[in-house]
Amino acid sequence: MKTLKEINIKTNTPYKILIGENLLQYSGEYVKKLTCAKKVLIVTDDIVHNLYAHVVSKSLRDAGFKVFYFIFNHGEQSKNLKNVEKVYSSLIENEFTRQDLIIALGGGVSGDLAGFAAATYMRGIDYIQIPTTLLSQIDSSIGGKTGVNLMQGKNLVGAFFQPRLVLVDIATLNTLSDEIISDGMAEAIKYALIKSPSLFYKIKNSELKDIIFELVVECIKIKKEIIQKDEKELGKRKLLNFGHTLGHAIENFYNYSRYSHGQAVAIGMASIVKSCEKLLLTKKGTYCELISVLEKYNLPYEIDCNIDDLVSISKTDKKASDQCLDIILIESIGKSYVKRIHKDDFKKYIGG
Amino acid sequence: MKTLKEINIKTNTPYKILIGENLLQYSGEYVKKLTCAKKVLIVTDDIVHNLYAHVVSKSLRDAGFKVFYFIFNHGEQSKNLKNVEKVYSSLIENEFTRQDLIIALGGGVSGDLAGFAAATYMRGIDYIQIPTTLLSQIDSSIGGKTGVNLMQGKNLVGAFFQPRLVLVDIATLNTLSDEIISDGMAEAIKYALIKSPSLFYKIKNSELKDIIFELVVECIKIKKEIIQKDEKELGKRKLLNFGHTLGHAIENFYNYSRYSHGQAVAIGMASIVKSCEKLLLTKKGTYCELISVLEKYNLPYEIDCNIDDLVSISKTDKKASDQCLDIILIESIGKSYVKRIHKDDFKKYIGG
Repeated sequence: MKTLKEINIKTNTPYKILIGENLLQYSGEYVKKLTCAKKVLIVTDDIVHNLYAHVVSKSLRDAGFKVFYFIFNHGEQSKNLKNVEKVYSSLIENEFTRQDLIIALGGGVSGDLAGFAAATYMRGIDYIQIPTTLLSQIDSSIGGKTGVNLMQGKNLVGAFFQPRLVLVDIATLNTLSDEIISDGMAEAIKYALIKSPSLFYKIKNSELKDIIFELVVECIKIKKEIIQKDEKELGKRKLLNFGHTLGHAIENFYNYSRYSHGQAVAIGMASIVKSCEKLLLTKKGTYCELISVLEKYNLPYEIDCNIDDLVSISKTDKKASDQCLDIILIESIGKSYVKRIHKDDFKKYIGG
Repeated sequence: MKTLKEINIKTNTPYKILIGENLLQYSGEYVKKLTCAKKVLIVTDDIVHNLYAHVVSKSLRDAGFKVFYFIFNHGEQSKNLKNVEKVYSSLIENEFTRQDLIIALGGGVSGDLAGFAAATYMRGIDYIQIPTTLLSQIDSSIGGKTGVNLMQGKNLVGAFFQPRLVLVDIATLNTLSDEIISDGMAEAIKYALIKSPSLFYKIKNSELKDIIFELVVECIKIKKEIIQKDEKELGKRKLLNFGHTLGHAIENFYNYSRYSHGQAVAIGMASIVKSCEKLLLTKKGTYCELISVLEKYNLPYEIDCNIDDLVSISKTDKKASDQCLDIILIESIGKSYVKRIHKDDFKKYIGG
């Protein structure tokens, strides 16, 4: 193993993030250190199961765990209450106690689904995140947001529930398509825009393969600083939603089929930066810088549907209250803030 | 209002319990003080709805809230995931945001169901407990245990999620049948047995109507002391389960039809005390004292089914780990402790 970085998250229940290369084969040892569990349920999708389940489960078995699987069909549509119930059934059938363990192996869907089942089975059992996509490694596996979608919308049901450990093996990124990498890069660009000019220019000026390890570490550190101050998204954590209110509306408008999450967030960020430059809220030239980076990763940046439809969808955003909406704006690259606006004013911040 | 007692619970999210007579009509004022919610969903069963919904909702409306209802059929069988989903739908249809509020009005089923929906809707919105049975006033509304039953067992799904306020109106106890009062008295007797000889003799030697206010306050104080030290039931909080492992097994054996929760707990407590007196683990004479109090409240105390069946059911108890089971024993009235035993030894502690 070339490098191993440890980051400690000091939330209400503290935990460790380990970042390294080829960590999966040691997962049993890491897990063993922090649990007296006898059984482990690995929650994963069919694709990730074929790629990594054998190495993880071998390592877990070697460390003395009894290993079970819950395998679901890959894709966002699996993130639903039906599958949560199936996870419960699997835990009950295999007589999992409060001392046993769930492992989320895969992308954001595995993490959110497994995390929510862990948060609610017998009022909470331990779980561990082993994220295998860039997006989940730098974002969704950290911070304890778990949940599933309802027919009526995404992530409408969930819980804040921190994992006991996050194992980030950057070697898993080698199996990802360029498109899936771009999806994660949109979130990396978001971190840079809200908190780190140096990360932004690193992304802009370097080849990803040369900076991947430090990029993952840097993004996780930014997220760590924010969630430690505001675990339950009552204030500063909202900064992480830069580009997301519009992004969610775009995903929703196209019924989650045309754009990936990262693509939608890219359009969301670009639209806000473009408008805010015109409104003199964002430093001139920022949009141009942003576009160059988005283009580098083949990320879209133009809204190609009716803005009024998006505004109307955004009114039902989880971040909205009765009349108001908290949106994130940037003054310049690396400088962000939360702004509470009237729902009806959202349009002018996104170019309408 | 004759008396008003305020008890502050210092859990991770602290909250207040107000105990008084005829509090319901002031509920709007109390709620208003601690929320900027615009909308309130009252979760209640058909019986409680007919009795108290009008006075609570009038008070809430007078305080400026928009009031909605989720009414379910009374009874334990309503405490399921289907109803949780219906609560979600009701919240979504009525455009509840994270700032809005759920009120659980009624007994333990309302509290557990509403609390779990609140814990998980948009990753957690505020809820308030207005318990109207003795059992829920002294026990289930306090301490943040929320959850629902699965086909495979009771309370298998849930979350620890503290309410923002508990409003205990002891006037609601006047509408309860003797049987429902006895059901709650079993838990009051449990508190006395694990922590308070003075409460025990008060229950033994007084008419309930003369001590009801102090009894409710006393029980809540005992629960407060325990849960503040161990919010998530990792240690001392297990004391509150005195009589419950066997009680749950009895309820389960009769498919939740023959005995109420309190009745089953009464049998559970009596059986353990009887056996432990024989084993010289409990002071001689305790069983006799206990029986006199259980009889006073028409509570049963003899196991009337096969003990091996109960032992077998108890092995799947939530408090069980792989090999072990934590049971609660009392040395004498008011002195209790947690004992970790092998699952197979449970039988001898309950008279087998």
